Amino acid sequence: MVLAGPTNPMVTPLLTDLYQFTMAYAYWKAGKHKERAVFDLYFRKNPFGGEYTVFAGLEECIKFIANFKLADDEIDFVRQSLSTSCELEEGFYKYLSGVDCSEVEVYAIQEGSVVFPKVPLVRVEGPIAVVQLLETPFLNLINYASLVATNAARHRYVAGESKMLLEFGLRRAQGPDGGIGASRYCYMGGFHATSNVAAGKIFGIPLRGTHSHAFVSSFMSPDEIIDKSLRHSSDKRSTCEDFVSLVQTWLRKIQSWSNSLNGTFGGETNHSELAAFTSYALAFPDNFLALVDTYDVMRSGIPNFCAVALALNDLGYKAAGIRLDSGDLAYLSSEARKIFLIVEKEFGVPGFGKTVITASNDLNEETLDALNKQRHEVDAFGIGTHVVTCYAQAALGCVFKLVEINNQPRIKLSEDVTKVSIPCKKRSYRLFGKEGYPLVDIMTGENEPPPKVGERILCRHPFNESKRAYVVPQRVEELMKCFWHGPGGVREDLPPLKDIRERCISQLGKMRPDHMRRLNPTPYKVSVSAKLYDFIHFLWLNEAPVGELQ
Amino acid sequence: MVLAGPTNPMVTPLLTDLYQFTMAYAYWKAGKHKERAVFDLYFRKNPFGGEYTVFAGLEECIKFIANFKLADDEIDFVRQSLSTSCELEEGFYKYLSGVDCSEVEVYAIQEGSVVFPKVPLVRVEGPIAVVQLLETPFLNLINYASLVATNAARHRYVAGESKMLLEFGLRRAQGPDGGIGASRYCYMGGFHATSNVAAGKIFGIPLRGTHSHAFVSSFMSPDEIIDKSLRHSSDKRSTCEDFVSLVQTWLRKIQSWSNSLNGTFGGETNHSELAAFTSYALAFPDNFLALVDTYDVMRSGIPNFCAVALALNDLGYKAAGIRLDSGDLAYLSSEARKIFLIVEKEFGVPGFGKTVITASNDLNEETLDALNKQRHEVDAFGIGTHVVTCYAQAALGCVFKLVEINNQPRIKLSEDVTKVSIPCKKRSYRLFGKEGYPLVDIMTGENEPPPKVGERILCRHPFNESKRAYVVPQRVEELMKCFWHGPGGVREDLPPLKDIRERCISQLGKMRPDHMRRLNPTPYKVSVSAKLYDFIHFLWLNEAPVGELQ
Repeated sequence: MVLAGPTNPMVTPLLTDLYQFTMAYAYWKAGKHKERAVFDLYFRKNPFGGEYTVFAGLEECIKFIANFKLADDEIDFVRQSLSTSCELEEGFYKYLSGVDCSEVEVYAIQEGSVVFPKVPLVRVEGPIAVVQLLETPFLNLINYASLVATNAARHRYVAGESKMLLEFGLRRAQGPDGGIGASRYCYMGGFHATSNVAAGKIFGIPLRGTHSHAFVSSFMSPDEIIDKSLRHSSDKRSTCEDFVSLVQTWLRKIQSWSNSLNGTFGGETNHSELAAFTSYALAFPDNFLALVDTYDVMRSGIPNFCAVALALNDLGYKAAGIRLDSGDLAYLSSEARKIFLIVEKEFGVPGFGKTVITASNDLNEETLDALNKQRHEVDAFGIGTHVVTCYAQAALGCVFKLVEINNQPRIKLSEDVTKVSIPCKKRSYRLFGKEGYPLVDIMTGENEPPPKVGERILCRHPFNESKRAYVVPQRVEELMKCFWHGPGGVREDLPPLKDIRERCISQLGKMRPDHMRRLNPTPYKVSVSAKLYDFIHFLWLNEAPVGELQ
Repeated sequence: MVLAGPTNPMVTPLLTDLYQFTMAYAYWKAGKHKERAVFDLYFRKNPFGGEYTVFAGLEECIKFIANFKLADDEIDFVRQSLSTSCELEEGFYKYLSGVDCSEVEVYAIQEGSVVFPKVPLVRVEGPIAVVQLLETPFLNLINYASLVATNAARHRYVAGESKMLLEFGLRRAQGPDGGIGASRYCYMGGFHATSNVAAGKIFGIPLRGTHSHAFVSSFMSPDEIIDKSLRHSSDKRSTCEDFVSLVQTWLRKIQSWSNSLNGTFGGETNHSELAAFTSYALAFPDNFLALVDTYDVMRSGIPNFCAVALALNDLGYKAAGIRLDSGDLAYLSSEARKIFLIVEKEFGVPGFGKTVITASNDLNEETLDALNKQRHEVDAFGIGTHVVTCYAQAALGCVFKLVEINNQPRIKLSEDVTKVSIPCKKRSYRLFGKEGYPLVDIMTGENEPPPKVGERILCRHPFNESKRAYVVPQRVEELMKCFWHGPGGVREDLPPLKDIRERCISQLGKMRPDHMRRLNPTPYKVSVSAKLYDFIHFLWLNEAPVGELQ
């Protein structure tokens, strides 16, 4: 199976830290470069103060290794970078030019899965010099992807499933790929569409967008509109020759009617805005969505929108909705909804009360939560900066740790117990309870028998002796599958983005709700088998420096 | 002049928001698409709680417009994206296929300059439909670039000019381009080197890197080292046949000597670590830098390092230094320095006391500041996550606002006065005082006479009537230069990265120190001319919605 290269052409074997090459040389010089090593890629703490993470970035990693090969100019550059004072042996560069991933194996959890700290997301096995070269690109491709997908899922959870979520972050993203990646992984995490055209083209993500404040203020008055004609939606022979006048007639009707309302609605509206809305409707009569806050939402934006929408209605078109981009979104959306409902009744336009209200302006989890408490009437949220830059926590700390070399388990100790690595080539399983919820993840040694449905198994905290529990699983799911098998190439299918998105939404929906809530969520338990527990602590004792135990 | 395309091949005309295309069609349909519009790109607030920003990203913008042209498949994709329900007129796509930037003019402040809120960084003038297509890519290319460059400059300021700053962030960056861009703009902001090999190749940034914890734990003991010989540094005929034994001899000397010290130094050291250090020294005898915290810095890492370094010294090599990646960096660096100074004296190795100490591990402005207060002995800092993701503030809010169309000035009002735009096509100047420090930036209308050296000029706050001051500049610098002039292409030279970096460092060094300090810095003043002030407020009155003044 031939696999296209990474989505981003800048993802080359040089997209790595220099020390991966210095180490490769030191391994080669010591004759150790072919020693078989196993590394685990995992994170230590869920982001955003939550208790879950969405795993993303796997497809890019697999595409990367499927095409891993250093070009001549890349080897020349490595030569130049390593020869700061003395020349290295030429044999090393010959070795490098032959390096590929045909001796590498990658096991991983499926992309879009809900995952937890300490459990390996990816296990990479192969010649140590080669696997080390993969460390930085794998971390780069997975860290941000998983962070954004998780962030998107969290925003969706707060907004509620019935709301549309639109990602508008390209302009504030961390560079071009920060933007393109964000669009992809926001969609994976449950968003519905993006404004990013490039991401739409590359990944087939639905696109959304209408117009900006600049569009509104670029118009002076409706007089400047030259082509005023608009054809009837269904009756192709019937054309309104002067749509501008039709809009103005409707505006006058609305104005005289609004005088009877005791509110802030109506009055003299802004002419630039009316001209812009009318022009936009002439261009997109069946998709008229207006940004109504350039001047004053209730005094100008909404009446102008209603005038254009009612004129469109006369010609058989249904307006798409409004967007609010400033002010008190809960209040304004409720007021707008009231007007739409009254207009539906007053002017006899069925469905007008349901006109879609989109809100944007620096939204994040907190503001969505606050809007919910204020009973807003927003149908769709446009979210930018906060979701794409992961403003609340801009990095996920995935690490890549050596757990075995030449069949010898390795442990990385640290004074900080959360930083101690779990040694050995492992398997991991998710155990499900009676209600169908996942109960606990358990890691075992590679050759231990797997947990069995209906059989009691002891799940131990990897480092805390007193934390242990017996579980009788109703269902057992092995978490890691083989995605890359050196000589044979790709093993497990890489599903299309839509399927990964569905997997993600479905898995999130099946979690016990207390793990998912925003405030004080319950930690999901991650454990090791009794045998692995004993082995970790045996190694720990042996590896700890002489002097005192850490 | 032919200019290569953007560094990142994913930066294409489709890297924009969909609404730029829907607006382009609406402009085209209204016959407005060729109207000459002027947009200002600026930010409203300095990032990181500071009072300055470093402007970056300009070169990428100019390369982008120099190559701006929609390919056929891109136009097909736009057609498909816009035709959600009804077909748009085919003439629009013909127009789109001919669009380039030959009618666009770009004025900008030079990249690497210190800049302030509200003052345009870039002014783009051209046919409105074309300029709108540039909005999102320009913001994307400038927002993150400027944010990272500023972040790097702030880290350098806290670390102090005598310290080396190494950017190690690729693995935690926001995607591949988040990593490559970060390396480039960290260097621009004053960092000295990066670990990112791709960035080294593309931009010529110096590279740094040695080895990781995995390298250390991949070794078992010095017995496994096969090729133990090492040639003398200067005397090519002399070779030490058993460098491993030489190291072990030194280790025993250090151990027996350390018994006489009353400290935590020395004792039995870790064999894996000694083997890894020895191997690394055999591979890079003239660039031996060891990560000393895998097991225990004082009990194992430092004595092992000293043994290898002293053995290298016997053969005429000078060890490069150590890296600390965990623990109390101030304490450990001071203890390490003490040992190095004693070793210099005890074993007669001149310069050993000055062995370079590099520190890493989640460093940021706060931890650097805390280290300073604790009197550390670190010479070089490796900074990753915090500098590349801009963890302290993950986005800069640059905006792109219409300020004039068809020679008619436009203002964007808002209930939030900080969001009101400054209308008109403008010029801006930096006024310098007697001591050579910049005093104030002032914006004027395009055709106002420029401020003159030695002549009093009234500088007004753009929105606050009571804030005004007369200034007599000793030097006047016009801030924006022409970087792109439609028919002629590139105007102002795009200097190499090194020169931009020097410009940045030099400008930062010339700022009044109270603008630069971390805590409660003094805001730098940004003003408008009296004439522009009056005009803003005249427009404001006229544009405000009827009902109440905002």
